[in-house]
Amino acid sequence: MGARPAHHRRDVHVRQLLGGMTHGVAAAGRRSRSPHGALEAPCGGRKLCGKCRVAFVAGAPAPSAVEAELLSADDLAAGVRLACRSRPSADATVRLLPPPRTDWWKIAGAAATSVPLDPAVRVVRCRPAAATLARPTARASRLQAEIGEFQLPLPVLRDLRGEGDGRGEDGALEVVVVGDEVAEVRPLPRLQGPDDTRPAVCGVALDIGTTTIVGYLCDLRTGRQLAAASAMNPQRSFGADLISRLHAVLDDPANAERLRQLLLRAVGRIVAQCCRDAGCAPDRVFEVTVAANTCMHHFFLGLDVTPLARSPFAPVITEGLDVPASDVGLSIHPRGRVYVLPNVAGFVGADAVAGLLASGLGHGERWGLLLDIGTNAEVVLGHRERILACSAAAGPAFEGGNISCGTVARDGAISRVAWEGGRLRAETVGGSPATGLCGSGLLDAAAVLVGLGVVRPSGRLLAPEAWPEGVRAGVPWSEEPEGVVLAEGETPVVLTQRDVRELQLAKGAVRAACDILLRTAGIGPEDLGEVLLAGAFGNYMDPGSVLAMGLIPPVHPSRLRSVGNVAGTGAKLALLARGAREDAAALRDAVEYVELSTTPGFQDAFADAMRLSG
Amino acid sequence: MGARPAHHRRDVHVRQLLGGMTHGVAAAGRRSRSPHGALEAPCGGRKLCGKCRVAFVAGAPAPSAVEAELLSADDLAAGVRLACRSRPSADATVRLLPPPRTDWWKIAGAAATSVPLDPAVRVVRCRPAAATLARPTARASRLQAEIGEFQLPLPVLRDLRGEGDGRGEDGALEVVVVGDEVAEVRPLPRLQGPDDTRPAVCGVALDIGTTTIVGYLCDLRTGRQLAAASAMNPQRSFGADLISRLHAVLDDPANAERLRQLLLRAVGRIVAQCCRDAGCAPDRVFEVTVAANTCMHHFFLGLDVTPLARSPFAPVITEGLDVPASDVGLSIHPRGRVYVLPNVAGFVGADAVAGLLASGLGHGERWGLLLDIGTNAEVVLGHRERILACSAAAGPAFEGGNISCGTVARDGAISRVAWEGGRLRAETVGGSPATGLCGSGLLDAAAVLVGLGVVRPSGRLLAPEAWPEGVRAGVPWSEEPEGVVLAEGETPVVLTQRDVRELQLAKGAVRAACDILLRTAGIGPEDLGEVLLAGAFGNYMDPGSVLAMGLIPPVHPSRLRSVGNVAGTGAKLALLARGAREDAAALRDAVEYVELSTTPGFQDAFADAMRLSG
Repeated sequence: MGARPAHHRRDVHVRQLLGGMTHGVAAAGRRSRSPHGALEAPCGGRKLCGKCRVAFVAGAPAPSAVEAELLSADDLAAGVRLACRSRPSADATVRLLPPPRTDWWKIAGAAATSVPLDPAVRVVRCRPAAATLARPTARASRLQAEIGEFQLPLPVLRDLRGEGDGRGEDGALEVVVVGDEVAEVRPLPRLQGPDDTRPAVCGVALDIGTTTIVGYLCDLRTGRQLAAASAMNPQRSFGADLISRLHAVLDDPANAERLRQLLLRAVGRIVAQCCRDAGCAPDRVFEVTVAANTCMHHFFLGLDVTPLARSPFAPVITEGLDVPASDVGLSIHPRGRVYVLPNVAGFVGADAVAGLLASGLGHGERWGLLLDIGTNAEVVLGHRERILACSAAAGPAFEGGNISCGTVARDGAISRVAWEGGRLRAETVGGSPATGLCGSGLLDAAAVLVGLGVVRPSGRLLAPEAWPEGVRAGVPWSEEPEGVVLAEGETPVVLTQRDVRELQLAKGAVRAACDILLRTAGIGPEDLGEVLLAGAFGNYMDPGSVLAMGLIPPVHPSRLRSVGNVAGTGAKLALLARGAREDAAALRDAVEYVELSTTPGFQDAFADAMRLSG
Repeated sequence: MGARPAHHRRDVHVRQLLGGMTHGVAAAGRRSRSPHGALEAPCGGRKLCGKCRVAFVAGAPAPSAVEAELLSADDLAAGVRLACRSRPSADATVRLLPPPRTDWWKIAGAAATSVPLDPAVRVVRCRPAAATLARPTARASRLQAEIGEFQLPLPVLRDLRGEGDGRGEDGALEVVVVGDEVAEVRPLPRLQGPDDTRPAVCGVALDIGTTTIVGYLCDLRTGRQLAAASAMNPQRSFGADLISRLHAVLDDPANAERLRQLLLRAVGRIVAQCCRDAGCAPDRVFEVTVAANTCMHHFFLGLDVTPLARSPFAPVITEGLDVPASDVGLSIHPRGRVYVLPNVAGFVGADAVAGLLASGLGHGERWGLLLDIGTNAEVVLGHRERILACSAAAGPAFEGGNISCGTVARDGAISRVAWEGGRLRAETVGGSPATGLCGSGLLDAAAVLVGLGVVRPSGRLLAPEAWPEGVRAGVPWSEEPEGVVLAEGETPVVLTQRDVRELQLAKGAVRAACDILLRTAGIGPEDLGEVLLAGAFGNYMDPGSVLAMGLIPPVHPSRLRSVGNVAGTGAKLALLARGAREDAAALRDAVEYVELSTTPGFQDAFADAMRLSG
């Protein structure tokens, strides 16, 4: 009594925590429906993607030429039109069609890191001394004598009831502390059952990406991951890329709150889904940790995003933030907190810091390169002495955006393309029939077609007359002219000239970023000990194609490694170990941000890097 | 730039701050109506005081004998009855009658203390550097570089808008900081007018007593007091004394919230009244500081009061508290804070600590005795080496409670009684016609009547036959038998035998507390350098009567000093000087609490002290 009890520590292996994640999400995917009815519009309403289907219940306008081409005769007859193409001339009722595919997909892989379990959320049991006439010490002081000088916010003080009120049979209490603040004081029933009958004390780690949001629910008593869930970022109805969404806010400031609410609701559904899967009440979640790019970070917290749309792209805040969940608008425990990892700059976000944290890139002896290839690609070059980071505006091509048959890496997405037995063979995520083309498949397809001479290294797609036998031409389900059929089927998956150009822009941006960082550090590709590819792209990429297409500087294929969702793993580390937050702050301080647009030679590097060759 | 600007300091004299307070309240009193319609029932519904008047709109029951006696014929005809006496036999509609007198009254006097102006609420002007592509520093970091590392809560971060949004013409900002947290960031218009055109930055100091609540609104840029207001504590509808209110909660736990809401609304009205008088918007109040006895403290904060009703009377918390005003339920600035001074024990509260702070009692070379005589009398004995404190359950007699014609010290209350020219002469507060008897008048009356032989030192009121000529018998406006008429008039003010007994109990409790503290310290009355009488009682008391009646240990009258509302002054010190909070914490830690009920000899001391003699 009087002594602060040592906090129970145990080591857990993060790889182990991630066990069952794929299963958890696959399980969620099997029974989930689309978590929202928002329109999917990767092109941001620029009338390019043909994905924003709506059904007119009555008064359907005559289909445009584009719609006639893109939609089936049955759909047209049933009143299906494209939202971006239709301008009703009279009142009409439309129904938003659910996206054609599930919004849940596979999450795989993660960097392995071992940390001692030491979350900001801690559970302490104690039995404070009773007050006596000789020592009528205040109830709060007697509690603090047991648990330490944690802050007692007013709502918790209100829960400190008088002695002998029959709630705790022998005065024993279970106290949940978040950070330096007591979040809950509950009387302990005298007879304790096995551990798992106690109310859960959980946390959720979130990776909020431009395209996808992933959540992991962990038991903070044990560090075990109990559930995981993911969903599309519903903000994509404002455009697949960040710039479209930022411009939506510049055009109409009220869109900022609309975009925030879309995000908040999606996050809320992910937390709720995790809780349902784990059989845990949402108010037993005491903390949410968040890795996100700076733009998602700002939308999530309700900060002003407009500076991110304009030079010099200065964020509102870069420090890590620890705020009440109620201020954010998340429905977890009423005194739950949200911890958001620190950002580096407008386009090198908390997700990059989380990636650094999880990948261990900043701790090695040799230089390493970490690429998180999404709509914005964060590229980090570092070792224990120095860390450089920049952001490359890759555009959404690697996440399937602005690609005729593009999709994110989910069931049915073509993730690999090969030339076998005189014909193109497409491999899909989950082995399902091909329904689209994701980033790794796009890169593979380009590599194969360059190899076949169908596409020139300059990016020009030759006319079908020049194609080898076995490569077939077809029309994609958007308005593009014909291209190369990668997979046959009811709706064939086709790669067009414009798709190749989109790939070149994306690839060029990423490679130029790598080259500029190497040049800034004064090193060459031979100095790289490892190249880490994060995210879904990294999971499915073919190292051969990555090198053949020159997406990264030339290194031996053995140095190339997929590290999975390092941003999510970083968020999980911050959830499970307070020390990771200090590491994150130190890493952020150590990072030298390189602004590509003002770096001499960037335009040349970009132009050079557009070429499809190693 | 980059340096934290030195905080502007200026010394103010608290006596000077208090200037105009009496005027302010008197002014408020002139135009105020009763701030609430709650029933006044100093006796706690025990059918003793005759003050709980209601008007039956229809179906008035026949008046009881007591009502027939206490109410005028006009009132009876108009359906006026006493709430505690009336038991309607059928459905009826009643109207609560406003208390017959204003609820505002005079506040006067205060201890003089000089403090450097250094409030927890500070205003800082700055002009953060603009971000550049070369240094795209986060907006929050650029602000913190100017003002220091204050916390930026999420709602404030949300207010940090992008540069060049036209709100601050040249990027200049005015920042309001409360404690270690930024509460507000506002762009400054380029052209500044004189100081008084800027939005106010204010605070309110509150003294929440069992019977009365006083608030002082101060400009925190200058330290000037802008307004003051006071009101009856509407909780008195549950009884005049703390014990009645605590028992109301023991009887029905839902009463705790009812009592809290009564208090909160009254405090809200006082803050609003002060703001109206000063022409200041309530959301320009950034902090409220509170001195209160432990019971009011707990009610105000919504803490469990039941431990205060039962031995060992341990409070929920004794530390000073700094909590969001929104948690308390006060409508001031959305990020305003409430600071509550620390308590010592269940019945030695933050008001006693505030009194210690304002009186300087704990700093002197010689022993001093401080008495704050309310329903609970806090008695503190101390000098720089040692401080002893105890609480005496005086009962409400000194605030006019349970006294036939009792009232608090407001306009018309008899505050002094003398024997002049062969008859009793009553002096009233404000010189108005006598409407009741307050604590100092009660003591004076007893002293005069003991001197005349009408009352024996034992407390026995002799029969009228034994009274000298010029002393007249009369019946008070409650159900008492006849007593001594102190003032003639439409409703004469009368002192009865039971009133003398109530006085004896109150006086006995206070004097016994003094004697026990002296004995505990091992000193005698001759060691007392000063005896300080706080509160309204202290303002109006006659030192001769205080000594003649033996309310305090025998000292030379020159040592007796009235120090006014030291609790309110202490709250004001905490509002104007952060250092006062540290002093308060140190004083609280230094105080040795003496529990009278377990002190050997207390009952004997109490019995001895009931005698009406010096």
